[in-house]
Amino acid sequence: MQTRPITVGGRPLGDGRAPATCAPLVGRTLAALEEEAAVVAAKRPDLLEWRVDFFAGIADSAQVLAAARAIHARADGIPLLFTRRSAREGGEAIPLDEPGVVALYREVCASGLFGLVDFEMENDPAHIAEVAAMAKEAGAGLVLSFHDFKRTPPVAELVARFGQAARLGADVAKVAVMPADAGDVLRLLEATLQAGRELSVPVISMSMGGWGTLTRLCGGVFGSALTFAVGRTASAPGQMPIEDVRAALAILRQGMGR
Amino acid sequence: MQTRPITVGGRPLGDGRAPATCAPLVGRTLAALEEEAAVVAAKRPDLLEWRVDFFAGIADSAQVLAAARAIHARADGIPLLFTRRSAREGGEAIPLDEPGVVALYREVCASGLFGLVDFEMENDPAHIAEVAAMAKEAGAGLVLSFHDFKRTPPVAELVARFGQAARLGADVAKVAVMPADAGDVLRLLEATLQAGRELSVPVISMSMGGWGTLTRLCGGVFGSALTFAVGRTASAPGQMPIEDVRAALAILRQGMGR
Repeated sequence: MQTRPITVGGRPLGDGRAPATCAPLVGRTLAALEEEAAVVAAKRPDLLEWRVDFFAGIADSAQVLAAARAIHARADGIPLLFTRRSAREGGEAIPLDEPGVVALYREVCASGLFGLVDFEMENDPAHIAEVAAMAKEAGAGLVLSFHDFKRTPPVAELVARFGQAARLGADVAKVAVMPADAGDVLRLLEATLQAGRELSVPVISMSMGGWGTLTRLCGGVFGSALTFAVGRTASAPGQMPIEDVRAALAILRQGMGR
Repeated sequence: MQTRPITVGGRPLGDGRAPATCAPLVGRTLAALEEEAAVVAAKRPDLLEWRVDFFAGIADSAQVLAAARAIHARADGIPLLFTRRSAREGGEAIPLDEPGVVALYREVCASGLFGLVDFEMENDPAHIAEVAAMAKEAGAGLVLSFHDFKRTPPVAELVARFGQAARLGADVAKVAVMPADAGDVLRLLEATLQAGRELSVPVISMSMGGWGTLTRLCGGVFGSALTFAVGRTASAPGQMPIEDVRAALAILRQGMGR
């Protein structure tokens, strides 16, 4: 598939064939995360995403770093993505203000445990610049992301979102939106195709929910470099079991002769 | 998926869930067709298409009817589609002129063995009217089809092709085109979606070749009522084994919650 691969430490994720698979970790406690990381890592996704907004200890950086180390120890070499998803964009409510979140990203980046960090492009531009700088210093790739759980914006607006991420210094530009119908799914794929052709950084995209299912399987054909799939527990509507995603990708690749 | 089902004798193909699967039969001799029909029918496609242009005895109506009866006997209740694909639209060269083809359709329709017949909308309008009338008289559904093995026309032109089929009296409108890239695939899907919303007859569509692979799996999401899949031998570029198509459709439906 015609996709620019995501690299971590200079190496492409997985076997370099797109899309790579990413499984989320959503445990609320250290013990839950330890067990979840082991179970999910055993399914060999190409990337493990820690959704720290689910973690009850998020306001205590010592607890966050202990959990990060525990996940890393159980990841069995699978690269890690650190993500705090805001409540505004579909994440959990957390007891940290935005400067607190930035401070948390600073400690997490400095730990060197994460190959990629996700930060939302709707955040304060000063915070984005701070996180971009700290990721660069730590040698971690920066995913700048945009989510709309209510609708699918027009193609031009979606393309602009990918471009905004690249302009703000993203190593990877991610856009996830909610379709109301099959036409919205085509708009997301069209925007992905355009953005992938225009930008020099890899893009990730998906339509969420039931209508968007096919984008989690076929997005790579249109340039999406990564698809989220469930190891143990979904983190967004429409995510499918990683076994199913892998089986469908294998059929699609076989059909495409790749 | 939001698709108008194809009916044969008033009953929807397969289990009524779209897309239905259709496997082609391409044997050159009666013996080859007998064996092929048995093997392919055992894989339980929802429809069996006899591509009569592959049949060496096509110019002898007695041989054609004998082969049709042999296929029907081995179809084990699976409805049959009769198709002569012209060389102009990707079929085999045959030793029959167009009036001879129309005469063949007349005998085949009268046999009552076929639930559906496919005729190309680029044929002489008088021939289309004749075939439409004989299909109606025989109680067979008429598929009017258009194929472009070289390119993917613009969306408006594709939508017009579906509409042309409906205007000419089709019970099913079929369009198959060749994509040059992923953008062409989106155009075919967009046209399918539009045509399915505008027309009262079921539509079938596909992008052929490697790029088009995903349309054979996900076309139903955009309204395509049927997908061609290989039982024994492919009849067009990009067709995948029916086992793979079924597995991918099951994963897609599961993800969509249908």
